[in-house]
Amino acid sequence: MRIIYEPNEMQEIAKKYREWNKKIGFVPTMGYLHEGHLSLVRQAKQENDVVFVSIFVNPTQFAPNEDLDKYPRDIKRDEELLRKEGVDFLFYPTVDNMYPDGFQTYVNVEELTKVLEGASRPTHFKGVTTVVLKLFNITKPHRAYFGQKDAQQLIVIKRMVEDLNVDIDIVGMPIVREEDGLAMSSRNKYLNEKDRKEAVCLYQSLQKAKELIESGIDDTNTIKTEMKKTIESYKIPKIDYININSLTTLEELNKIKKNDTLISLAVFVGKTRLIDNLWI
Amino acid sequence: MRIIYEPNEMQEIAKKYREWNKKIGFVPTMGYLHEGHLSLVRQAKQENDVVFVSIFVNPTQFAPNEDLDKYPRDIKRDEELLRKEGVDFLFYPTVDNMYPDGFQTYVNVEELTKVLEGASRPTHFKGVTTVVLKLFNITKPHRAYFGQKDAQQLIVIKRMVEDLNVDIDIVGMPIVREEDGLAMSSRNKYLNEKDRKEAVCLYQSLQKAKELIESGIDDTNTIKTEMKKTIESYKIPKIDYININSLTTLEELNKIKKNDTLISLAVFVGKTRLIDNLWI
Repeated sequence: MRIIYEPNEMQEIAKKYREWNKKIGFVPTMGYLHEGHLSLVRQAKQENDVVFVSIFVNPTQFAPNEDLDKYPRDIKRDEELLRKEGVDFLFYPTVDNMYPDGFQTYVNVEELTKVLEGASRPTHFKGVTTVVLKLFNITKPHRAYFGQKDAQQLIVIKRMVEDLNVDIDIVGMPIVREEDGLAMSSRNKYLNEKDRKEAVCLYQSLQKAKELIESGIDDTNTIKTEMKKTIESYKIPKIDYININSLTTLEELNKIKKNDTLISLAVFVGKTRLIDNLWI
Repeated sequence: MRIIYEPNEMQEIAKKYREWNKKIGFVPTMGYLHEGHLSLVRQAKQENDVVFVSIFVNPTQFAPNEDLDKYPRDIKRDEELLRKEGVDFLFYPTVDNMYPDGFQTYVNVEELTKVLEGASRPTHFKGVTTVVLKLFNITKPHRAYFGQKDAQQLIVIKRMVEDLNVDIDIVGMPIVREEDGLAMSSRNKYLNEKDRKEAVCLYQSLQKAKELIESGIDDTNTIKTEMKKTIESYKIPKIDYININSLTTLEELNKIKKNDTLISLAVFVGKTRLIDNLWI
């Protein structure tokens, strides 16, 4: 595995693979890799001739009050994990190389970013779409892989790709979970022992929603109320939001719509804000 | 010359030329072509294996009070001109194909667009950069050609391309002028006979600036005052702005800086707003 630090060098390598008509698979990450990331890498390995992974903790998607500085990092361990998976190139740029002096161009998906995570984090998605488009232009992939855990991110990126005619297949991959059901996340590291036990409440509330829907209930208020009860049966967690939306427009739904429903929630477990979701 | 109406079809054709490792030259236009556009086409023909030209009067770069509906169009004449130049593909999409229902993603160069044309037309450049990035993704060029007449547009697009790591060479081409010096523009069509005669005032004022600079004067206030006097010696023209800025940052300059100065002006001649400029 070669590690590339310079955007221009990465782009030249991507250009070569393009000229050789090789299929490029790309997995953008912020590092501190877990099985969720590795599931994306494995899928990329299966479907492409060459796999690029990026590790870049993107400052423009963190608000000043958020956890940019303490976001967990372990590049040596990440390198080792990616080598084992047979990744061909790790793109690991500096902030200055991605955002040199005078940088001032942003990509914004204007509507889908106003709700859910975007309501709690108003500048977050503009940072995400901007850096993802930059990374796409640098790595020139045929396919790019994203986890469904960041459901709104995936939906927003698909919208950007369609709106701007970006010629890349966006592949969404299922959430990978710990044994008790907690969705894998780099931020799980923040949880102390007590928090960690109670963090399962997000998964439990989604399981509750699933059971209700399977039993024929389609009223979203009923489902949200039951999810809320599930979480309130724990001591530490504090709900940020529980929402049921259309997967395509992110409009709030009154009734469950098969194949077009996203149930998502954000919960503070101690000081750590966790998210999870279910696609119906 | 083949005419392509569908973005997806155009993109598939571009992809083929990329796979064959052919160099693609691209000239985006709003049609109603004149010698200025054709100079771009000829340069593109010289430097590339295949030339794509687009004609698209982009609604998102016009404000509601502007001339979208009356913007001049003559697709039959344009087709003929492009055929004569040996253009390979004309991309001529509909508004609905470029902006389907649900479209909501915009690209914005945040600082360079606040001054000059951007000050008079606050939503203009966001429309320009968005459509240009879309057109780039559809036509996948190696080189794209823009006239220096829309100086700020060229500077903004270069900034976007650099900031978003777009792997395309942006080629700026000199202003093409009528015999009396009037910069060629599709909007010159709006001028009646009297207006047309007085429209030369923009070029005359730039010539005045050039003379002053060649005589050693580098104080921009002096130069602007003399330019103003030149224009005020005509009857019809009303100045919108006269500005002297850095070519890279668009900051206003107190002194002329060789190789980094843009002298630009916008003038209403009758009801028609004309622009012109000089790169020092």
